[in-house]
Amino acid sequence: MTGTAREIGVGIIGFGTVGSGTAKLLLENAELLRRRVGAPIRLVRVADLDIERDRGVPLPDGLLTTDGFQVIRDPAVHIVVELVGGKTDARDFLFEAIRQGKSVVTANKALLAEHGEEIGKAVTAAGVDIGFEASVGGGIPIIRAMREGLAANRINEVYGIINGTCNYILSRMTDEGKEFADVLAEAQSIGLAEADPSFDVDGIDSAHKLSILVWLATGGTVPPEKIYVEGIRDISAQDIGFAREFGYTIKLLAIAKQTGNGIEVHVHPTMIPSDHLLATVGGSFNAIYVKGDFVGSSLYYGQGAGKLPTASAVVSDVIEIARNIRKGVSGRIPASGYHDHLTGKGTTVSSFADVDFEHYLRFRVIDKPGVLSKIAGVLGSHQISISSVIQKGRRKESAVAIFIVTHHAKEKDMRAALEETDRLPVVLDRTRMIRIENNL
Amino acid sequence: MTGTAREIGVGIIGFGTVGSGTAKLLLENAELLRRRVGAPIRLVRVADLDIERDRGVPLPDGLLTTDGFQVIRDPAVHIVVELVGGKTDARDFLFEAIRQGKSVVTANKALLAEHGEEIGKAVTAAGVDIGFEASVGGGIPIIRAMREGLAANRINEVYGIINGTCNYILSRMTDEGKEFADVLAEAQSIGLAEADPSFDVDGIDSAHKLSILVWLATGGTVPPEKIYVEGIRDISAQDIGFAREFGYTIKLLAIAKQTGNGIEVHVHPTMIPSDHLLATVGGSFNAIYVKGDFVGSSLYYGQGAGKLPTASAVVSDVIEIARNIRKGVSGRIPASGYHDHLTGKGTTVSSFADVDFEHYLRFRVIDKPGVLSKIAGVLGSHQISISSVIQKGRRKESAVAIFIVTHHAKEKDMRAALEETDRLPVVLDRTRMIRIENNL
Repeated sequence: MTGTAREIGVGIIGFGTVGSGTAKLLLENAELLRRRVGAPIRLVRVADLDIERDRGVPLPDGLLTTDGFQVIRDPAVHIVVELVGGKTDARDFLFEAIRQGKSVVTANKALLAEHGEEIGKAVTAAGVDIGFEASVGGGIPIIRAMREGLAANRINEVYGIINGTCNYILSRMTDEGKEFADVLAEAQSIGLAEADPSFDVDGIDSAHKLSILVWLATGGTVPPEKIYVEGIRDISAQDIGFAREFGYTIKLLAIAKQTGNGIEVHVHPTMIPSDHLLATVGGSFNAIYVKGDFVGSSLYYGQGAGKLPTASAVVSDVIEIARNIRKGVSGRIPASGYHDHLTGKGTTVSSFADVDFEHYLRFRVIDKPGVLSKIAGVLGSHQISISSVIQKGRRKESAVAIFIVTHHAKEKDMRAALEETDRLPVVLDRTRMIRIENNL
Repeated sequence: MTGTAREIGVGIIGFGTVGSGTAKLLLENAELLRRRVGAPIRLVRVADLDIERDRGVPLPDGLLTTDGFQVIRDPAVHIVVELVGGKTDARDFLFEAIRQGKSVVTANKALLAEHGEEIGKAVTAAGVDIGFEASVGGGIPIIRAMREGLAANRINEVYGIINGTCNYILSRMTDEGKEFADVLAEAQSIGLAEADPSFDVDGIDSAHKLSILVWLATGGTVPPEKIYVEGIRDISAQDIGFAREFGYTIKLLAIAKQTGNGIEVHVHPTMIPSDHLLATVGGSFNAIYVKGDFVGSSLYYGQGAGKLPTASAVVSDVIEIARNIRKGVSGRIPASGYHDHLTGKGTTVSSFADVDFEHYLRFRVIDKPGVLSKIAGVLGSHQISISSVIQKGRRKESAVAIFIVTHHAKEKDMRAALEETDRLPVVLDRTRMIRIENNL
């Protein structure tokens, strides 16, 4: 199909939340899309195993099918939108569409994080395009920012609030002083958290998205399993209260930083200054803070999930690909944003043991003289110096909390020190440690 | 030049701050750019009237010329970067380059605001491309967000902090309680404000940029002279102090909103809730807050000016055009982002008189009984009701300040009311009015 094309056909596989939002957008904003592309975009086919349930989006007759491959094979479909999720069927649909010479759009972050490079090569080989704007940051056009808007820069640092569920939970804990379990239960009751919330609250989803961001920043892949991940289950109202007192806000940050030897890539709760733009990102919103060598600091903020914002991202890819189809080109921008023809080009991940942070430590100890000096002694023996200490607890209690903020220390030293302090008889629980980022 | 091209040549006209930043980027990140584009980007020619002064960017021998047209005519130059500024020579260079079949990149917001449509048509007719990412928001990829990332949306509202000088001045007035004139003088002394600061502090620059944003949001043009503009000269430390007390921060906002009949387009100081993301944009940073019908709220933040951030934006356009040249295409995305073939397609600007805001009013009055009732009476007679009142001033003084916050009122009613109150013998000065935006 070339410049003379009268119409560009779209097929959707997966008629769930995002699929129905995408169909709604394609239908309602059809005239706008025509003006954007220079040719009409027509929704040609929609596949889902369940074609009975009413999604509230009235489709023209005859569009629905239960067979995803029928969407792919339809000659009127030029762009296949894969919104099935998961890694099995989705993978089959994606590769089959590419093999059939169809361009593809997907929101499937797990698939991209684990098979991005393979997908990128298949796309290039088949002479088609792939869009995955919806895979990170929902409606935020962060993929485009990385592949195009900031393309002239070496990307030195990325800090992302890229899981809406975690940000919603932490924001409500911060605003209302509630505990994790209570807010999680409420989030589950209103559909903002899954019945099994592990994928979100344990940081796995953030790691998948961070893997994609690193791929776009560097051109090389980092498999999610190489990313150090810590979730938000252990954050207490006490930690958040202490953070506030010291001018910090706790966010689950996905962090990537260029170092002298490779790139640091990690996801964990982080204390950041409360007056930083990222600290003001509330509710289920997402934001990605990116530093480049020429552009300096920049930030992209918006709805990280949801039917309509995600549809906005999916259809932005449909528009981009349709603009290419109209001009008869593909491969203007490779999947990663880089024309690297090396196979298996990974990015070197520097050791997490060498990562350097200030730290917040919360010890639960027996209230008797000499305890602090014992802890300080252990820290000191691991080259960790203390910036401030607060002790809290009623006098009648036998257990009290000691809060310590350290100066910069390496992860490996901190771990060795905590292993040792946690064996002290006066220390009652596993010590809570949260990393502090002052330089973002 | 098509897919087999070995090299894409760039010529720069104007070797000032942005020109030298652009040259520096093209030279220093040449290998990165090659990986981004799939072909080398070579800086072929640089023109400036002054080719003696050292810009701190060592150019290869023989690149410099005093003749901009020589850059355009050079057959090795495929992309002409116009960074001359102004509206006379810049216009000649731009149109000559287009006529010669060269794609162009410019940061010239005044030229685009006033001749955007004409330039867009010339570009389409000549089969070349134009990039102007650097014209709004410096390094922030907001042009791309509007033309591509959010392209599936009807853009309903835009609120921009798009003049770094004004934001720097207002931020320092807010943080330090200083008066406008003092901060302006300091900003001038460090080069953050021009000797004649009118273009910035009177809001003209913001209006030019807003005109471009509206063009990209709607596909239709709004000439800058149709935009209501009010600068920041009259903002006092007193206003800022009052705003803070009531939970507001004063920003110079460039606002565009779709209404039932056309679009509201205006630039003026605005009180916004201090906990809104836009209120936390400090210093000379820029941010653009955009609401679309599917994406909801989104925000783009970064350096709004400066040698390196602006170069990042200029070269992002060079990359985009080079990606097109490599594939042998142009016109994938028209200048406005819309394929509208109507001539003279303007956007209907709704009357500013009908704009609706809450208002902050500062009256300076003679301190005697009955004054407030007189003022309230006048406001009431124009359908303006009062939300809160504070009176400040020492008892010994004959003049006191009355601060009033109103409920929603139309601009025309507010103007009529203030014309009347300002004629009251008890009112000593022209009353200060600042619009309040609570719903952004």
